[in-house]
Amino acid sequence: MLRTHTCEELNISNVNQKVTLCGWLQKNRKLGGMLFVDLRDRYGITQLVFNNERNSELCEIAESLGREWVIQATGTVAERYSKNKNITTGDIEIIVDAVTVLNRSEIPPFTIEDESDGGDELRLKYRYLDLRRNPVKNNLIFRHNLSIEIRNYMNGIGFLEIETPFLIKSTPEGARDFLVPSRMNPCEFYALPQSPQTFKQLLMISGYDRYFQIVRCFRDEDLRADRQPEFTQIDCEMSFVEQEDILQTFEGLIKHIFHKVKGIDIESISRITFEDAMRLYGSDKPDTRFGMSFVELNDKLQHRAFSVFNNSELVVGFVAKGCAHYSRKQLDAFTDFVKRPQIGAGGLVYIICNEDSTFKSSVEKFYSQEDLASVAEKCNAFAGDLILIMSGETKKVRKQLCELRLEMGKQLGLCRAGEYKPLWVIDFPLLEWDDETQRFYAKHHPFTAPKPEHLALMDTRPGAVLANAYDLVINGTEIGGGSIRIYSKELQQKMFSVLGLSTEEAHNQFGFLMNAFQYGCPPHGGIAFGFDRLCAILNDSDSIRDFIAFPKNNSGRDPMLDAPATINPAQLKELGISFKN
Amino acid sequence: MLRTHTCEELNISNVNQKVTLCGWLQKNRKLGGMLFVDLRDRYGITQLVFNNERNSELCEIAESLGREWVIQATGTVAERYSKNKNITTGDIEIIVDAVTVLNRSEIPPFTIEDESDGGDELRLKYRYLDLRRNPVKNNLIFRHNLSIEIRNYMNGIGFLEIETPFLIKSTPEGARDFLVPSRMNPCEFYALPQSPQTFKQLLMISGYDRYFQIVRCFRDEDLRADRQPEFTQIDCEMSFVEQEDILQTFEGLIKHIFHKVKGIDIESISRITFEDAMRLYGSDKPDTRFGMSFVELNDKLQHRAFSVFNNSELVVGFVAKGCAHYSRKQLDAFTDFVKRPQIGAGGLVYIICNEDSTFKSSVEKFYSQEDLASVAEKCNAFAGDLILIMSGETKKVRKQLCELRLEMGKQLGLCRAGEYKPLWVIDFPLLEWDDETQRFYAKHHPFTAPKPEHLALMDTRPGAVLANAYDLVINGTEIGGGSIRIYSKELQQKMFSVLGLSTEEAHNQFGFLMNAFQYGCPPHGGIAFGFDRLCAILNDSDSIRDFIAFPKNNSGRDPMLDAPATINPAQLKELGISFKN
Repeated sequence: MLRTHTCEELNISNVNQKVTLCGWLQKNRKLGGMLFVDLRDRYGITQLVFNNERNSELCEIAESLGREWVIQATGTVAERYSKNKNITTGDIEIIVDAVTVLNRSEIPPFTIEDESDGGDELRLKYRYLDLRRNPVKNNLIFRHNLSIEIRNYMNGIGFLEIETPFLIKSTPEGARDFLVPSRMNPCEFYALPQSPQTFKQLLMISGYDRYFQIVRCFRDEDLRADRQPEFTQIDCEMSFVEQEDILQTFEGLIKHIFHKVKGIDIESISRITFEDAMRLYGSDKPDTRFGMSFVELNDKLQHRAFSVFNNSELVVGFVAKGCAHYSRKQLDAFTDFVKRPQIGAGGLVYIICNEDSTFKSSVEKFYSQEDLASVAEKCNAFAGDLILIMSGETKKVRKQLCELRLEMGKQLGLCRAGEYKPLWVIDFPLLEWDDETQRFYAKHHPFTAPKPEHLALMDTRPGAVLANAYDLVINGTEIGGGSIRIYSKELQQKMFSVLGLSTEEAHNQFGFLMNAFQYGCPPHGGIAFGFDRLCAILNDSDSIRDFIAFPKNNSGRDPMLDAPATINPAQLKELGISFKN
Repeated sequence: MLRTHTCEELNISNVNQKVTLCGWLQKNRKLGGMLFVDLRDRYGITQLVFNNERNSELCEIAESLGREWVIQATGTVAERYSKNKNITTGDIEIIVDAVTVLNRSEIPPFTIEDESDGGDELRLKYRYLDLRRNPVKNNLIFRHNLSIEIRNYMNGIGFLEIETPFLIKSTPEGARDFLVPSRMNPCEFYALPQSPQTFKQLLMISGYDRYFQIVRCFRDEDLRADRQPEFTQIDCEMSFVEQEDILQTFEGLIKHIFHKVKGIDIESISRITFEDAMRLYGSDKPDTRFGMSFVELNDKLQHRAFSVFNNSELVVGFVAKGCAHYSRKQLDAFTDFVKRPQIGAGGLVYIICNEDSTFKSSVEKFYSQEDLASVAEKCNAFAGDLILIMSGETKKVRKQLCELRLEMGKQLGLCRAGEYKPLWVIDFPLLEWDDETQRFYAKHHPFTAPKPEHLALMDTRPGAVLANAYDLVINGTEIGGGSIRIYSKELQQKMFSVLGLSTEEAHNQFGFLMNAFQYGCPPHGGIAFGFDRLCAILNDSDSIRDFIAFPKNNSGRDPMLDAPATINPAQLKELGISFKN
């Protein structure tokens, strides 16, 4: 080893010891005849001291060292005169006898500090330098520790990690696949997996009964902020189970994770049905760190002459506790917020519950004080509270009010970092109707089973069929989702037919799975968690990118590698491929 | 849960307990009025009993169940009359009260037994059924356990598992890349990584100092037996180290693995230089479970009139202990063996050391008994031994004799299953000359550093430069390889230029790495192990396929998925791709 210790290891017990350290020069400063150098490695920082009186030649060399140079220093551990309580090595320093430059460094294009001066794209281009910064480094160490804990837990309860293939077959149902031309099979393509879904089901058919995998997945989607073309999934499947078994098993995993990597003991994970989540929060991934759940007010507000409400499918509001003091300007700002094109609401109605038990409202010319009191009563609003109300088409108005609720939650400081409310959302609908293409799509995926008691509805009212499908939501972010699966060929065929796949298409794409169903397929179900997103949410971050060592930018490019890139003509020729103009 | 216990859990202590089991019907047999059913799951087998007298209706149902049907059975644990000591549940059976068919099964296309009657291609097509067989299942469980042990060990000594990207840039130097057309960047391609080599080096530049990853890699090579287009690597890298540190660190890993998953304590791993390995075994991956090392005999056999030897660059042989009794027919068979086109030798010379201290040889008309005695003396051969000798061009004859040595080792039962001789092969040459293309290729890869003391030779005799590069070999199979890396831009440029890459090509392909070298790159090195092959060798298997859940066949196809496959025209159009005729 080129070093005897790391830059975090030495303390007062090592005084007088001869040591050799290696690392990067974080910074240096002169103080009289002394030169102090902060030497940094993955583990920490140790102060090196060069004394001009003791060895002026060495001191001169040390002065010539630049930031981010890689150096090896040998010297003696000494107690510091003025201690630094912020770092573990703050009690000591190294009186250096010899220093070797292992490698020089150009001046970095941005500062290697916790708060860097580099922009996103520049830091991606020099990702290897960005990775030196503590916040990014700590994220990757967190990710490593999380993966260790997940594997230990899953292994401990009998799950086998089984690797599934990356070069598979394209299945256009669902998101878009990345394709890989096959040189050995001209005109044919492999696809990269969007998830190991069919493989984990095959493993259940093979009898492996408890499978998991931390695995890369790929989706060639138009990228939105915080989507990556490749992402990592914790993929799990179990046999001989019902929904309750899966919820309990993975509640165990979530509790273990919070306990081990956050030191937080989660008592239990609440549950809400999809229908209630939509009704009470306007979202299938509600942030339940705070209340402000929705109250439907059609019965209270559709009996007067206010046509906006009268003509609406749904009138719905929520209470902002203690916000009666909001100024007209503040209230107008909320109206502007919901009228923004991203939200697209027509307007916002407020009712202020005054301390004197009167009510002030933007629609008070339509409603009596008694009307407003009755609304307040239904909303459980009291003196000092503010009621915000919107109306419109049910689906739309819920979504709009959901945005307003989240915005108010943020403004009121109710989305507290460090507080975590995991939540199971259950009883999802099996199918979702798409107006544009005039067909049903699978809400989760085409392998999700309808609830047995809804089987008959498949023919008559497919849109009403519920599934034993569930999402795990933490603080308003979907972290995972899964379902009990179809395990009979006939039901799978019916499902494909409801989704508009012809028998032939279904056979071409999923024939192997439906065949497999005929050879003794056990009842099974599973779940998959987004590993990148789980890392982010556990660190109160919105950005999965910060938890990926080498992420792509929003155009799906890697600015460091400059990938994707053109390839040479010989490679194209080998693949027998050309480009259409 | 649909079951209370697995099919391996119950024993005599559970007698009289009411239980529910789920599993696959392995077989059933009638005995008088009794029907016995072997129920199988991932964990084991439990015997179910149906008594015609007790419940004839139930017995009738049970008789109708077929092989591989999935059933749920509820009943009472009872002590068996005739116990089966071969299985853990052999003391008990279940007197069944109720049985539910969870799913039926067609008759499987091959038997689900330890020795199946299915051919390779059929078993690949129905891989989900093949995976039910114990040998395959045990392999995958072994693989899971091995991965757990590797991760625990690496984590324990401070290595971080960091995921690197799969959608990267093509670097035609080395093996052929699989390419992925980018829809969002027309006419551009990603490549799938052949290994995370450059990323792990970048992580060293980022200061992570101990990295590992169990990771999928891809090579679009013409497949030979036991090669897979996708394979899994244990990829590792360390900073501030010299070769000795890496050898010791990973010797620790290998010892840990053998101890934990095989119960074998490896004392230490021997080392041999590449030069000695070639001289003594004719191979850079010698099987050292047995001796029979080569003895060079030019000095002993080039002084008489035998022109074949006189005209050969190298005359070389080995001793087969106690094989003097081999018949003429056996010896001829060896001659035939080395003359096969795959080996291509001209012939084989033998010297038999008779018990009476005389020698019999196929070339005795050219050599005196004293000549032959002198050969025997140099070879350390004694009465009762057989000496086999070949001659020719050094490189070729070593390879031919190596094949013969391995064949004899097998025939003599010296390649014992369950015996493991890990070996470090060190001091590899940096470069390898290719006669066909008239250029040097990197023996390991272009990032391997020359030994510092050989730096000057880079300009004058590149072929003579040795590298701090090393392979780990177990029983004649290369399990891993690595090296100390280049960490200066200038040396990396020189390396590329020796390999015939223009400055522009080098910049296009590896500019990001060479740039990174300029920002404080520490000395570093690493190693990568073939995970599939490690699994195979630890189970004395030649076939990595048996340790991969869903392998490809020798044409790179997955017969189960029928992949690769044609894609639909809309997908081609989105990619802007067409096929050349």
